[in-house]
Amino acid sequence: MKLLTLRRADGTTRVGRLDGPQDDDEARVVELDPAALDPTGGGGATDVGALLAVDGWQQLATRGGPADGPTHRYGDLDLAPLVPNPAKVVCVGLNYKAHILEMGRDLPDHPTLFAKWASTLTGPRDDVPLPPEDDALDWEGELVVVVGQRVRRASVAAAAEAIAGYAVANDVSMRTWQFRTKEWLQGKVWDSSTPVGPVLTTADSWQPGPTISTRVNGEEVQSAPTDDLLFGPIELVAYVSTMLELAPGDLILTGTPGGVGRARKPPRYLVDGDVVEVSVDGLGTLRNVVVAEPIAERLAGEVD
Amino acid sequence: MKLLTLRRADGTTRVGRLDGPQDDDEARVVELDPAALDPTGGGGATDVGALLAVDGWQQLATRGGPADGPTHRYGDLDLAPLVPNPAKVVCVGLNYKAHILEMGRDLPDHPTLFAKWASTLTGPRDDVPLPPEDDALDWEGELVVVVGQRVRRASVAAAAEAIAGYAVANDVSMRTWQFRTKEWLQGKVWDSSTPVGPVLTTADSWQPGPTISTRVNGEEVQSAPTDDLLFGPIELVAYVSTMLELAPGDLILTGTPGGVGRARKPPRYLVDGDVVEVSVDGLGTLRNVVVAEPIAERLAGEVD
Repeated sequence: MKLLTLRRADGTTRVGRLDGPQDDDEARVVELDPAALDPTGGGGATDVGALLAVDGWQQLATRGGPADGPTHRYGDLDLAPLVPNPAKVVCVGLNYKAHILEMGRDLPDHPTLFAKWASTLTGPRDDVPLPPEDDALDWEGELVVVVGQRVRRASVAAAAEAIAGYAVANDVSMRTWQFRTKEWLQGKVWDSSTPVGPVLTTADSWQPGPTISTRVNGEEVQSAPTDDLLFGPIELVAYVSTMLELAPGDLILTGTPGGVGRARKPPRYLVDGDVVEVSVDGLGTLRNVVVAEPIAERLAGEVD
Repeated sequence: MKLLTLRRADGTTRVGRLDGPQDDDEARVVELDPAALDPTGGGGATDVGALLAVDGWQQLATRGGPADGPTHRYGDLDLAPLVPNPAKVVCVGLNYKAHILEMGRDLPDHPTLFAKWASTLTGPRDDVPLPPEDDALDWEGELVVVVGQRVRRASVAAAAEAIAGYAVANDVSMRTWQFRTKEWLQGKVWDSSTPVGPVLTTADSWQPGPTISTRVNGEEVQSAPTDDLLFGPIELVAYVSTMLELAPGDLILTGTPGGVGRARKPPRYLVDGDVVEVSVDGLGTLRNVVVAEPIAERLAGEVD
C-alpha cells in the first residue's frame, strides 16, 4: 500500500492512497475520510502520521475500505511532507559502506546521529529556500524509515515489526553553518529545508536494495544501492529505541551515499532555479526547485 | 509573574500561578481555568506552552483575573515539565566564558547548538532514570530561555521582545553514548532525562546575573553568575531564529558552567539514589533523585 498526505485548498490536509505507480502523474489517488480512519473518535486522521497511530490502520485505509472518498490525479496534488508533524526526526550521518571506505575511514562501531524538528520538513514537490545567510546549499538523498509502533529497547524482531514502511528524503544542508562548530545541527534545521515523501510504501511491499539516486538539473550526482547501509533500518530502530521510545510517525533518515556537492573538487552547491530530484526505485521521486529567499530585512551583520 | 504546569490525578495538566516565593513549599499556587485562558475556544490552555500561544496571556493569567480557580500548596504539587510539549528544544554547548577560558580554549565566534525533543523532558521533582546502558550519568545545570512569540530572523529588539521569561534545566547527559561519535545527540536525548522548571518567571521580573548552582547530595558542584554567558539570551534568540521560526513554548537551554562530573579527576558520575539540585537565584530549584532503571529485557549485546 502507498499512502500520502495531501494539502487541500482550505489549508487542511488529508490522507490519500495512491492506487498506481508512484512515478506516474496519471495514477489515481483516493482521498480517505478522516473520521472513517479514526473510528474511536477524536479529530480524525488527517495525515499519515496520525493514521499510523490508529490501531488497524492497514485495514481502515485499504482499497475498497470504509474510508474511500473522492479521487484525484496524482500529478495534480499539492503534497505535504509525508508526516507533517513527527514528534522526532532522527538522522544518521556516515552510513553507506562504500562511501565511508572511499573516504579512507574505518567503519564506525556506532551510527552518528543528529536531529531535525517537524518545522524542518517540507513537501516532496515544494520549493526549497536558498537562504541569504548561506550560499553553500548541498543535496543529500536519503532513504527514510517511517515508524509505525511505539517501541523502547526494541529487540531485532520488535524493531522489524515497528517499521511501517519507507520513503525518500533530501537532507538539504547549509554547509557553512553546518561546519561553523563541531555539531552539525545548525546546518540541518533550517525551516522547510528537508523534503520528505512522496509516499509511504508499506514494509510488506518494499525492502532495502533498490537504487537511490540524486539528480541536479537532470545530471545524476548520487547513486547507490540502499542495502549498502552499515546500519540498516532494523538495526537503527533498535539502536535509537535504546535511548527513547519511538512512536508512530517518527522518522529516521538513514544517511546519504557519496556524491554530495561539498566533496567535489571544486565544491558544487545549489543555486537559484536548480531542480533537485531524489529517487528510490519503488518508492518514488522528490522534485524540488531551489528558490532564493529575498535578503532578510534584518541587517546581516547585526547578529552574527 | 510565575507560572507552572501541574499534573492532576486524572493525568491531565493545568497551568498554575505561583503567588509566592519559588523556594517556599508553603506558597500558594492558583490553578487556572483552561477555558478562561483561551477565550477564542479550542481545547483551552492546559499547560504553560499552550498558554504562551494565546494573545494577551499575561492579562488572562494575572492575579484576580478571569482564570483564577482552586488553590494548592506549592510543596504538594506534582509538577510537569514547565512546557510539556515544546515544538523545539535548542541547546547550547560551551557558553560560560570563565569555563571556556579555564579549559584553555579560545572564545568561539558562534554558539555550538544541539537538539532535544519534547520526550526528553521531565518534571522538576521527578526521578531521573539511570539507564542500564550507560553508567556515566552527568549533571549540567542550565538557565532556560522560554520563547513567547513567533520570530524569524529577529533583530535584537525583536528577540528581546520574544522572550517570555526564564526557568532552570538540568541537561543530564549520558557521557558514554555522548562521545561514541562526534555528534553529542545520543548522550542528550534519553527519555525523561532533562528536568525543566520549576516555574516560568516572566522577563519583566528577572534578568540574567544571579547565580546558577548545582548540588549533588547537598555538595555544591557548579556555581556561576548567569551573566557570564558568551552568547546571552537575546543573542541566542536572534541567532537561532535566523535558521528557523521560534514559536511560543520553544525552549533554549543556554549551556552549563564549569564543574561537570566528567571534567573532574577522577571523573564523578551520578549513582542510584543521588539527589541532584539545580538552582538559579530568583528562578527556583529543580530537585531530582537518580533512580536506576531495571536491566532491560533485551539482551544487552543484541543491538550495540
